[in-house]
Amino acid sequence: METWDAIRARRNVRTYRPDPVPAADLDRIAEAGWRAPSASNRQQWNFIVVTDRGQLEALSTVWRGARHIATAAAAIALVVPQFDDDRMRTVNQYDLGQATYAMMLAAADLGVGTGHSSVGGQEAARKILGVPDDHDVAYLIGIGYPADRPLKPIVKPDRLPFDEVVRRGHW
Amino acid sequence: METWDAIRARRNVRTYRPDPVPAADLDRIAEAGWRAPSASNRQQWNFIVVTDRGQLEALSTVWRGARHIATAAAAIALVVPQFDDDRMRTVNQYDLGQATYAMMLAAADLGVGTGHSSVGGQEAARKILGVPDDHDVAYLIGIGYPADRPLKPIVKPDRLPFDEVVRRGHW
Repeated sequence: METWDAIRARRNVRTYRPDPVPAADLDRIAEAGWRAPSASNRQQWNFIVVTDRGQLEALSTVWRGARHIATAAAAIALVVPQFDDDRMRTVNQYDLGQATYAMMLAAADLGVGTGHSSVGGQEAARKILGVPDDHDVAYLIGIGYPADRPLKPIVKPDRLPFDEVVRRGHW
Repeated sequence: METWDAIRARRNVRTYRPDPVPAADLDRIAEAGWRAPSASNRQQWNFIVVTDRGQLEALSTVWRGARHIATAAAAIALVVPQFDDDRMRTVNQYDLGQATYAMMLAAADLGVGTGHSSVGGQEAARKILGVPDDHDVAYLIGIGYPADRPLKPIVKPDRLPFDEVVRRGHW
């Protein structure tokens, strides 16, 4: 898909067709995250690709916004070290956002929908994925083919007026 | 450009040709940010598109990592409200990361390079852009045509080994 079409077609997808997403496509989605930039190229992240139904169902319980993971074809968990440093923690969140968007866009390009979620129950999430205690499961991205309409460029996205958000030269 | 090519071609660009980037292209780059997802679709952000040389030179002094802004064709400043709430501040950083990557990828698709920077001197940055005291200039994105090689898919990006970063099923 053309980049501009993928950017306009990406939307949060939280209901999925039961079809699996090919392993090669999941690899490409993860590769987009792997390629994402990070502060000083630190790459303070791991991406765990999950396709096991039992794990997906268990992960769907770690946050009220994660319920869609139960019926996703797959999920990618974004895992980060616990930072003592406030500044590092902040920058890492910014970097995780970049990696997340990269993966969501790579998915949209393949006609695959994504919907991300925070994680509330760290202990439970760590246990499901075998993540060590000094790391956090920061976010989950649910992955699957949209149950409703396919991904097509959205002409009028649900956003504040463009000229209110985007300004020229000054506030 | 195909999405997968743009994802592989995007790199941090901090030296620019002096040529201006067409206003329509800057609009498209900003539109990609405008379309980016945010927690509960809150859109707690403004994007200020700057092309004035004096402003760009002034912005290049607000952080040691912002020097490249002086010679960029343009910059986009990401402005956010100051949050009292820690959780909101964290999630906003994540959202800013998503918007940043969206804009960088839209730029790469147009052959336009980008390089982002934090902001150290908030008071100075606010003054240059006329931003009110209860907002922060969180990040700057320098924008311009690469002075060196054009944007082409990078076969071996400078990253940790893929299998170290991306895991299957468990940590």
